Amino acid sequence: MFEVAELGHTVEKSLYKEKSAQLRTQLLTIQHQLKSCPFSVIIIISGVDGGGKGEVIHKLNEWLDPRHMRTIALGEASDEERERPTFWRYWRTLPAKGTIGVYVGSWYSDPIAQRVYQKVDDNALQTELTQINQLEKLLADDNTLIIKCWLHLKKADQAKRLKSLAKNPATKWRVTDKDRQHLGLYDEFIGVAEQVLTETSKSYAPWLIVEGSDIRYSSLTVGQHVFERIEQHIQQYDATLSTATDLQNSSNNSLIEQYNLLDSLDLSLKLGKSYYKKQLEKYQGKLNELSRHALAANRSSILVFEGWDAAGKGGAIRRLTESMDARHYQVIPIAAPTDEERSHHYLWRFWRHIPRAGQVTIYDRSWYGRVLVERVEGLAKNSHWQRAYSEIVNFEEALLAHGIVIMKFWLHIDKDEQIDRFKRREQISYKQFKITDEDYRNREKWDDYQKAVNEMIARTSTSKSPWLLVESNDKYYARIKIIKAYCERLEKMLDEIN
Amino acid sequence: MFEVAELGHTVEKSLYKEKSAQLRTQLLTIQHQLKSCPFSVIIIISGVDGGGKGEVIHKLNEWLDPRHMRTIALGEASDEERERPTFWRYWRTLPAKGTIGVYVGSWYSDPIAQRVYQKVDDNALQTELTQINQLEKLLADDNTLIIKCWLHLKKADQAKRLKSLAKNPATKWRVTDKDRQHLGLYDEFIGVAEQVLTETSKSYAPWLIVEGSDIRYSSLTVGQHVFERIEQHIQQYDATLSTATDLQNSSNNSLIEQYNLLDSLDLSLKLGKSYYKKQLEKYQGKLNELSRHALAANRSSILVFEGWDAAGKGGAIRRLTESMDARHYQVIPIAAPTDEERSHHYLWRFWRHIPRAGQVTIYDRSWYGRVLVERVEGLAKNSHWQRAYSEIVNFEEALLAHGIVIMKFWLHIDKDEQIDRFKRREQISYKQFKITDEDYRNREKWDDYQKAVNEMIARTSTSKSPWLLVESNDKYYARIKIIKAYCERLEKMLDEIN
Repeated sequence: MFEVAELGHTVEKSLYKEKSAQLRTQLLTIQHQLKSCPFSVIIIISGVDGGGKGEVIHKLNEWLDPRHMRTIALGEASDEERERPTFWRYWRTLPAKGTIGVYVGSWYSDPIAQRVYQKVDDNALQTELTQINQLEKLLADDNTLIIKCWLHLKKADQAKRLKSLAKNPATKWRVTDKDRQHLGLYDEFIGVAEQVLTETSKSYAPWLIVEGSDIRYSSLTVGQHVFERIEQHIQQYDATLSTATDLQNSSNNSLIEQYNLLDSLDLSLKLGKSYYKKQLEKYQGKLNELSRHALAANRSSILVFEGWDAAGKGGAIRRLTESMDARHYQVIPIAAPTDEERSHHYLWRFWRHIPRAGQVTIYDRSWYGRVLVERVEGLAKNSHWQRAYSEIVNFEEALLAHGIVIMKFWLHIDKDEQIDRFKRREQISYKQFKITDEDYRNREKWDDYQKAVNEMIARTSTSKSPWLLVESNDKYYARIKIIKAYCERLEKMLDEIN
Repeated sequence: MFEVAELGHTVEKSLYKEKSAQLRTQLLTIQHQLKSCPFSVIIIISGVDGGGKGEVIHKLNEWLDPRHMRTIALGEASDEERERPTFWRYWRTLPAKGTIGVYVGSWYSDPIAQRVYQKVDDNALQTELTQINQLEKLLADDNTLIIKCWLHLKKADQAKRLKSLAKNPATKWRVTDKDRQHLGLYDEFIGVAEQVLTETSKSYAPWLIVEGSDIRYSSLTVGQHVFERIEQHIQQYDATLSTATDLQNSSNNSLIEQYNLLDSLDLSLKLGKSYYKKQLEKYQGKLNELSRHALAANRSSILVFEGWDAAGKGGAIRRLTESMDARHYQVIPIAAPTDEERSHHYLWRFWRHIPRAGQVTIYDRSWYGRVLVERVEGLAKNSHWQRAYSEIVNFEEALLAHGIVIMKFWLHIDKDEQIDRFKRREQISYKQFKITDEDYRNREKWDDYQKAVNEMIARTSTSKSPWLLVESNDKYYARIKIIKAYCERLEKMLDEIN
């Protein structure tokens, strides 16, 4: 697959001068247009050692306006990064809308290096490539433009290049022992690279293979490619805007409409007050102990609370946090996103709060807003919330793979109980502010929400990350069910690692 | 000073129950009001070991709505934190406006512990307390409410408390070897604490000393204090609003009006093109080498560019970055703040981008906007931009103390040169977008800006962090002056550490 990049392409110095001046104008102009576009650009520069990655990135920085781009060099992970799922460090560096992020050392670096050095087998590599494809698909679906360039060198050229770098005192420092070691593994490296490029070349994120033996040729080629891709992407985006006919909420015949999980819940379940108190004390004590063990074992938890307005999320959360150490948990209420959050993929704001090792993050409402409120209120397009199901499942799988305990609670009450609670809250001084007109408006769309909840559960309750449906007409019953379930999950996790 | 907290205060269980229910309502109500206030609340819970800090924080978390507060436990610094100035980790955790941050292990922990263990002397402690006072003053000036509670125990009570914690299997884990070690140093600890509390009890951030021997007493006292301080702060703030008569831009007779630094610059200075090219090549080569040495030595740089519109900041920045490795620098253009930035102190957005060890951050416009555009355009009140001078000096001192190289460039052109450049830019396709109506509007306020620049330089050019005034009517001259100055500064720094 690399034959085309072994032909010995070069560019004359004078031609280069002319072309690069022209390209710079083009790039600055398109970069200016990009600033007001609602998408970001990711440029990945990868390839063989000595292929001129550094030089090409340097040229891009020279041609483009450095104030609206950023070069992201991911070397060794920091401890804050190592304590979170692998992809957290990529998420935190993703460029905001209107800007460009150039990655040197991207999500491709580790998988390739580990396979070449045989630290992982083929299956593990496949798994990693699947995750990479999921990430890139999710970004592309959010209109992110992904440009991937692979700088190739023939084996003989690579040796020559490294030798000449090592001879020059000004560039000697750049040739590391690792480079020399790589050189001995050229064939293995090319084999793995072929596999990676094949598996991850998608219509929305194709690889461009560029011959790296002549810097003038490779930087012009990459620069030209970057310009064309951005220009094309802006045109396509403009075109979509004018022909957009997304049929809002038109797919009313969903697969799972026929059955209704929520209706199957027995909302008459309840506990007596004194029994509740005893149970609460028991499980709070237990949770206090278990959460200390989980902390000692560096195992984090993510607890997701969803449910009807006034279903008792806040009260249930408080019964959990009461028995936990305030230094180790964080409750994140999800309301309207900030403008920094709006300028990224909708999952970015949740990645921000992923806990460090041993810590607990409790989301009071969550990424499921995408398939609940955003769906019902028409804030997200049909195609957006529909693909969110698999994006969410993949997201949670990445968390699970890092050993994080995830629990998802749906607190269910019926319509009568809800109105009773609204009325009662309006009577209590410090709860009055909890009831707003919006609550009444949401109530009117009960049936739409019910349908959305059913579909959400059907599509995102997986064996590894199931939804726990909580009968919540009786607060006592609900709280005990939740704290007990969390205790059991922690116990199981601790058993497994001991 | 702790006598009042050794009287054996206690609260009966039944009284506690009644009082705490009442307090909870009060706290929830005031916390709801706080949500729409343009300031944040910082609660620092400090004190002797065994004084019940954990219990009090636990109670605060129980009483308040955990969704709009956060407990910040600062233990050992992460590597990302250690690579930056000490206070970076506090800045990154500061609560946003309308929310509460409860600190356990605050900026007081290290100074006290280090002095008790005699790792630092009295002078070093004094320096740290000065920095703490500066931070708290700066936050208080931004309307942040700072509540500081010190939980005290008699020597005998402390020993008893630790013993009882150690005996109970459920709390045994909480007593560490460090606690036992502290116990032996009780008198030293109290001595240092007295000094710290005396030095840092200010009208805007007073310490409340609370007896810690009875948890019910201490948590009620702290909770009550928190409620009263927040209530009072909201009332005061409302009062200020209605009587605010800040005389916008009224102080026209500034100290330094009589002389004009900018007029003293010789704007006829220039370089011939071929000489410029040779010099540029020389210094770019030098900078490339020096910046690699600085990276190897883990020494970061912060470069600040200010200057008239069209003074050539972008071009000068590009001449620097061309000779640097794109993986190690970052250009931050300062435009309007995001809403997350607006919900913090104005320096917060600059702290965010403080480079890790060895990295370089280039600010294209900076915190000096506070005393330039915000002053001239009336975006900041008089009292705000006036106190900004010392806030900025303190900020830069903190960076310098961490060994960061700071350079501040003012690019100066005259009015004629500016209008020529505006006209020329309008002719060049890819530079057109650089000229907007705002540029012409700013130009009309040239004299006001000139006065602000003069005062800025007079007040913030310190021996350790001087302004470099750059004669920029000739771009060649300006670029060489800048790159040469940065090279010399790096050289000097590298000499000093070798």
